[in-house]
Amino acid sequence: MSRGLFITTEGPDGAGKTTIMKMLGESLEGLGHKVLLTREPGGIPISEQIREVILNTENTVMDSRTEALLYAAARRQHLVEKVIPALEEGTTVLCDRFIDSSLAYQGYARGLGIDEVYGINRFAIGDVMPDLTFYFDIEPLEGLKRINAGENREVNRLDLEGLRFHEKVREGYLQIIDRWKERFYIIDASQEIEKVFRDTETRLLEKLGAV
Amino acid sequence: MSRGLFITTEGPDGAGKTTIMKMLGESLEGLGHKVLLTREPGGIPISEQIREVILNTENTVMDSRTEALLYAAARRQHLVEKVIPALEEGTTVLCDRFIDSSLAYQGYARGLGIDEVYGINRFAIGDVMPDLTFYFDIEPLEGLKRINAGENREVNRLDLEGLRFHEKVREGYLQIIDRWKERFYIIDASQEIEKVFRDTETRLLEKLGAV
Repeated sequence: MSRGLFITTEGPDGAGKTTIMKMLGESLEGLGHKVLLTREPGGIPISEQIREVILNTENTVMDSRTEALLYAAARRQHLVEKVIPALEEGTTVLCDRFIDSSLAYQGYARGLGIDEVYGINRFAIGDVMPDLTFYFDIEPLEGLKRINAGENREVNRLDLEGLRFHEKVREGYLQIIDRWKERFYIIDASQEIEKVFRDTETRLLEKLGAV
Repeated sequence: MSRGLFITTEGPDGAGKTTIMKMLGESLEGLGHKVLLTREPGGIPISEQIREVILNTENTVMDSRTEALLYAAARRQHLVEKVIPALEEGTTVLCDRFIDSSLAYQGYARGLGIDEVYGINRFAIGDVMPDLTFYFDIEPLEGLKRINAGENREVNRLDLEGLRFHEKVREGYLQIIDRWKERFYIIDASQEIEKVFRDTETRLLEKLGAV
């Protein structure tokens, strides 16, 4: 039995990643593929415990390197317990956010350095790099408006302060994509959802056919 | 005010590190130095929470890379919250086990690779490498006998199985020392404790005088 494909999705919240992943999963299953939809910590107890340490609101003084190491640790355990076993039994794994989120958020936007964060993440994932990564590209202000529409409220001052950060995250993603061009496929996530889905599905089916 | 010296101790349990560290601390304080004795997680809440995840006995399936990343994360936070502020106010910091324990135990004895474990630990500690590291060298069987004498029992079969591992840890330490010769000072920990203390104290005072 051949190893399954490992597909990841990246991009800001509000770009529609989760919705599209579900649609892709259903589409692939309809074609007879075994599919696993996941995202870290993904119900893996050790990874969940690590995430609790990261999110513990009493821990206001967490250093950004500590945080990056904890994300890498949670990633490792989720990979070993959930992703790798699925790939080995031939399942297509769709994982919402993976190494590139750490590179864009911690490495670039938080200033730790893409190379340095890549180093600890390579330790964490070994040679299990994604076969294909969809980057859902959308103007940060557009993504923000969508999130706020979901919450039925206007864009406010705090949102706009956060906007500068999200613009930085996007700059980071664009650098990462430039570095690993062959792995990435950029989706224009500002399009109608049906169009975004078709684009993504077409590329994924091409990739599956090529295996 | 000049930065304090950062001193670490390494070697197996049973080599007398803790006792000697206390004696060194008292000696330095008697000479008017400010001293901090510590060991990870050292009462730092985030580091303690991480240690709990590592030691949680329900987590029997923890991958060795996950564990190494968690140790590095706990190290980072302890360093940032406790060690660096003390060094900056001119305190001599004596830390029981540091980066070299990870290199010897995880990197060498557990087979993750000294270079790979060094990589994630350099991410964790940045340029805060110890100024001087005492390696308490003792034959693993000798260390084991001492621990068992403390517990008032004979060396048993399980101890002997563990012995092979401790011999491997010692091999790892010897490789690490060979690589960072100028930082290490090897103590013959099989000697009488008073002699071990004098050796260590002499070397430490030399180092302090040289600063």
